[in-house]
Amino acid sequence: MGVTVGVFGATGYTGRELVRWLARHPELRVSFTTGSGEGHLAHELGLEQPAEAYFLALPHGIAARYVAQLHARFPAATLVDLSGDLRLPDAPSYKLWYGLDHPAPELLGRTPYGLTEVFREQIAGARIVSNPGCYATSVLLPLLPLVSSGLIDSTDIVVDAKSGASGAGRALREDLLFCELTDDFSAYSPGRTHRHVGEIEPLLSARAGAPVTITFCPHLLPVKRGILSALYLRAHSPAGEVALALRSFYEGSPFVSITERPPRLSDVVHTNECHISVHEAAPGRIVIFSAIDNLVKGAAGQAIQNLNVALGWPETAGLEPAVRR
Amino acid sequence: MGVTVGVFGATGYTGRELVRWLARHPELRVSFTTGSGEGHLAHELGLEQPAEAYFLALPHGIAARYVAQLHARFPAATLVDLSGDLRLPDAPSYKLWYGLDHPAPELLGRTPYGLTEVFREQIAGARIVSNPGCYATSVLLPLLPLVSSGLIDSTDIVVDAKSGASGAGRALREDLLFCELTDDFSAYSPGRTHRHVGEIEPLLSARAGAPVTITFCPHLLPVKRGILSALYLRAHSPAGEVALALRSFYEGSPFVSITERPPRLSDVVHTNECHISVHEAAPGRIVIFSAIDNLVKGAAGQAIQNLNVALGWPETAGLEPAVRR
Amino acid sequence: MGVTVGVFGATGYTGRELVRWLARHPELRVSFTTGSGEGHLAHELGLEQPAEAYFLALPHGIAARYVAQLHARFPAATLVDLSGDLRLPDAPSYKLWYGLDHPAPELLGRTPYGLTEVFREQIAGARIVSNPGCYATSVLLPLLPLVSSGLIDSTDIVVDAKSGASGAGRALREDLLFCELTDDFSAYSPGRTHRHVGEIEPLLSARAGAPVTITFCPHLLPVKRGILSALYLRAHSPAGEVALALRSFYEGSPFVSITERPPRLSDVVHTNECHISVHEAAPGRIVIFSAIDNLVKGAAGQAIQNLNVALGWPETAGLEPAVRR
Amino acid sequence: MGVTVGVFGATGYTGRELVRWLARHPELRVSFTTGSGEGHLAHELGLEQPAEAYFLALPHGIAARYVAQLHARFPAATLVDLSGDLRLPDAPSYKLWYGLDHPAPELLGRTPYGLTEVFREQIAGARIVSNPGCYATSVLLPLLPLVSSGLIDSTDIVVDAKSGASGAGRALREDLLFCELTDDFSAYSPGRTHRHVGEIEPLLSARAGAPVTITFCPHLLPVKRGILSALYLRAHSPAGEVALALRSFYEGSPFVSITERPPRLSDVVHTNECHISVHEAAPGRIVIFSAIDNLVKGAAGQAIQNLNVALGWPETAGLEPAVRR
Repeated sequence: MGVTVGVFGATGYTGRELVRWLARHPELRVSFTTGSGEGHLAHELGLEQPAEAYFLALPHGIAARYVAQLHARFPAATLVDLSGDLRLPDAPSYKLWYGLDHPAPELLGRTPYGLTEVFREQIAGARIVSNPGCYATSVLLPLLPLVSSGLIDSTDIVVDAKSGASGAGRALREDLLFCELTDDFSAYSPGRTHRHVGEIEPLLSARAGAPVTITFCPHLLPVKRGILSALYLRAHSPAGEVALALRSFYEGSPFVSITERPPRLSDVVHTNECHISVHEAAPGRIVIFSAIDNLVKGAAGQAIQNLNVALGWPETAGLEPAVRR
Repeated sequence: MGVTVGVFGATGYTGRELVRWLARHPELRVSFTTGSGEGHLAHELGLEQPAEAYFLALPHGIAARYVAQLHARFPAATLVDLSGDLRLPDAPSYKLWYGLDHPAPELLGRTPYGLTEVFREQIAGARIVSNPGCYATSVLLPLLPLVSSGLIDSTDIVVDAKSGASGAGRALREDLLFCELTDDFSAYSPGRTHRHVGEIEPLLSARAGAPVTITFCPHLLPVKRGILSALYLRAHSPAGEVALALRSFYEGSPFVSITERPPRLSDVVHTNECHISVHEAAPGRIVIFSAIDNLVKGAAGQAIQNLNVALGWPETAGLEPAVRR
Repeated sequence: MGVTVGVFGATGYTGRELVRWLARHPELRVSFTTGSGEGHLAHELGLEQPAEAYFLALPHGIAARYVAQLHARFPAATLVDLSGDLRLPDAPSYKLWYGLDHPAPELLGRTPYGLTEVFREQIAGARIVSNPGCYATSVLLPLLPLVSSGLIDSTDIVVDAKSGASGAGRALREDLLFCELTDDFSAYSPGRTHRHVGEIEPLLSARAGAPVTITFCPHLLPVKRGILSALYLRAHSPAGEVALALRSFYEGSPFVSITERPPRLSDVVHTNECHISVHEAAPGRIVIFSAIDNLVKGAAGQAIQNLNVALGWPETAGLEPAVRR
Repeated sequence: MGVTVGVFGATGYTGRELVRWLARHPELRVSFTTGSGEGHLAHELGLEQPAEAYFLALPHGIAARYVAQLHARFPAATLVDLSGDLRLPDAPSYKLWYGLDHPAPELLGRTPYGLTEVFREQIAGARIVSNPGCYATSVLLPLLPLVSSGLIDSTDIVVDAKSGASGAGRALREDLLFCELTDDFSAYSPGRTHRHVGEIEPLLSARAGAPVTITFCPHLLPVKRGILSALYLRAHSPAGEVALALRSFYEGSPFVSITERPPRLSDVVHTNECHISVHEAAPGRIVIFSAIDNLVKGAAGQAIQNLNVALGWPETAGLEPAVRR
């Protein structure tokens, strides 16, 4: 019994995290996990009894091609794509931010964006869900409800984001060696170069009903997991009202909490939670902190949350917080 | 031979760092170091042959009292105060930010602020120098030359700062235990509550010729030493011109470098250097990164640099970079 | 429904870990948690409907007094003492290793030692269980089955043990500050001074039927949790046979695994597991590695495991591995 | 003025450390540094005015070939080889431990082993010096003086060694990624497989006048630099006498200290020092701790120390402790 699920790309940090959480899910049974997966895709496509759901934790440029083939062959299966391939609104944007022709442009514009708390209705019943990026999740959860609220000035948004090293994946890059990262800290991609900018801005613009441009700068922390973003905003209202608006928006969303004190990474790592706090920063300016685990709410956990919603299960199935810290 | 120097408060992280650097200084001979020092102050005040220079790495509220007594008794001695006592312009500001009546208000307004590269002329020959705070150093070095330059909008300044744990000193506080800090990261003092705001704004305002208000938010990094500040500014000129202006301002300042890529903590720790880079961040907005070692350029190293300048020695005496990393 | 349990001393690292695991236990309901607890002890002793089980995570010297009073008043309740008070065989040993007169000597010699896998039969049905020390757990699990096996020379045992910082508790000690521990590593208590020596040797001697003396040296690792012990032994048999003997002894013990490669801390942290490997080290000598989480199998987890056994429940209740790493 | 020195292999962690220390050396002038260096070797061999000294921080198997060619062409130049190529006594041992035919067997048996404090006389005036391995340095400094002293039992030596990650070099290996090493700890090469065993035993045997076999097990610490070795020995004398013997042996050796308390990594990192302490461990057994910086006394620093001795300069030239920690 249980719904069968296959995992393409189970050897990276995201894939391994996914497999560990899936092992605890009461409704799911993992039917296979692959590394690169090209061989297994052909095998799977030839089956009479395929898996009923698939997670794709594959590199961008490859993932959408898999999604297209799986969806064509098994239209009843539910697919959650954890790559960046289906996050942008159209092929030209993809070309701009990823430097590639889109491998399956027909999927764009009709695949719901899996920021579960915000797009629950579109995700329910969907056959394909595009799982958000980790930075994008940490930025959009506090920001999306606000850009259309009249409480803040959507033309003046500065995001200073910091991520643990697992966000860069398991690549054999010299800058990811222990001796290069430990005791150190720095920014990277300081200009408009990080792909998550291309993911965040269209969603904010659509919500705001006007083009929104953000200043976004990511940093690399000497920790394994966790993202903390600081959002500096011009506000038309006091911090307390902004907090209230967020609290009201996320009522009924068990994984999002609006807290009094600034969240710490240790409040959220190894959970699917996002903790958000709002503070006065200067006259007319507020700062919002947003903390998630990049591998859970920023990847594997939210992917499972999206599958839960797509299949009509309780959103928290298999995602109860573990004993930790 | 050599000038004799006494160190009050040599047991904290700053004091210990000071003693280590002093041991390498070619012109200085340490005549004593104390912990709390109350006893030694009396002893010193009774001497016929006191030290010729003093560093005071004492808690605020105590330090200025020591400075006043030493200066009254030995007007020819050179004093560098590493506390916050002499950094603010007047007693009411001190009361506001430190919550105390100032212990020696007569010293305020006539003690040069020891951001060496900017106030070299006032420091030369001075008998008392107020050594800047660590965050303030990392923020003011890039910002002071710019607020009067016309290159940036001085009414829109956001600073997201991150410091290693030694910045909080050697206090026995639970939040400074290894198990509380390792693998973790968070902001603190998010509003206008950090004392360095009270130190930074008057200096910027004086330079700009108009009140300057900043948004400043400090974070605690799970590393021992180093500060990296990100300054988000509205610019009237491209990042390249801003970099050029800084490069020109700091020509002849051997400890400040304007770099191409964003500085890493590991570029500056265990040195008296400040590395600064400037980047386009979004249309009309730039980001500036500034990295120092909080215990060296942010405390002990700059204190020695100030003594060097006050006594007319080469600014770099005893501060050549050590073998490190 | 569910058995009610009270926790004395829930604010240290062990107590907090205990509370987190208890929250997941299907059969237990926490009726109270205290910090120091003196006040609550009196309150509890006055109740008509006390808790049915108690965990005591209190300092040694205090814990046994609590145990004695709770046991006298509520003889049907099950008590698990996580302190060192009930681990030694008699009052003189306690005086020797802890420097105190024993607060309740009548409890010694009749309280089973809660190394669950080895003393399951004595623990079943017991009203008081003495939970082992963390180092002792990591050393005794591999060693106890061997000292009476004829496979090793019990007169030549060297243990080099390394523990994460949470093993030292949450005390405000300067040597536990982040800046003192990070990037560092050292041994402590190098001679026969660590209390766990006094705990380990009597148990080994009783099993071996002859006095056993060990060389034991603990080290402090710059990590939050985990113990890895290396045991250097003279062997009368090859490593493979020793491994086989351990595998056979721990058959049916779900939390102990004999592995091929040397265990890493990351294999066991956040679990109640102990991983053990055996290797040839030199002619006639083997090395055994043993890894546990000091806060789980070395404290809170084993305490729950002992309560499970004492009450006749499945040994693994509430201790299934969480999603982690 | 100054002796010119060339560095082959300056891009690894050892090579970079070497270049940083050389920059401070008062008598040396770096004439070139190379990465792989094959091209530069040909260039250098063709010069009329070559460098007067060379450091070779190249992979084993390559280094000895370079040494042979440089020595043949420039017999007056002084060469320090930091690889393992010239550390073993003969070609069959090399084949056994490194799995290669020795590239220049004629150099073996006549090249002094650069454990400076022990082999100073052979190193003085030598044209080729073989720089010891990092673990070997930490083990041999305390052990060599003892095996011929009658104070310990040379047939019963257990070494439990722990090294920071830079000891494994700058290789792009998955097990050296930040996310794999941080928060973790484990042993590796538990049997008689680490090459430093093959380096240590012949030197101990020669000194003892009888074959000496050791039990040696290395571990990987989550820190960047530093080695701490624990040596468990059967002693015929109390720890105090052993300490005295070491103190007497190293009198006049400025980089070796016999300390009272167990050394910490932080006592020695960024210095060329070795700190050693001796303690009673159990009846008839002592434990010796030995701490070095693997990149300095274990590699680059000792290489400079050896060049100093070979050229008749003060042993400490260019190696004075830097300001650090």
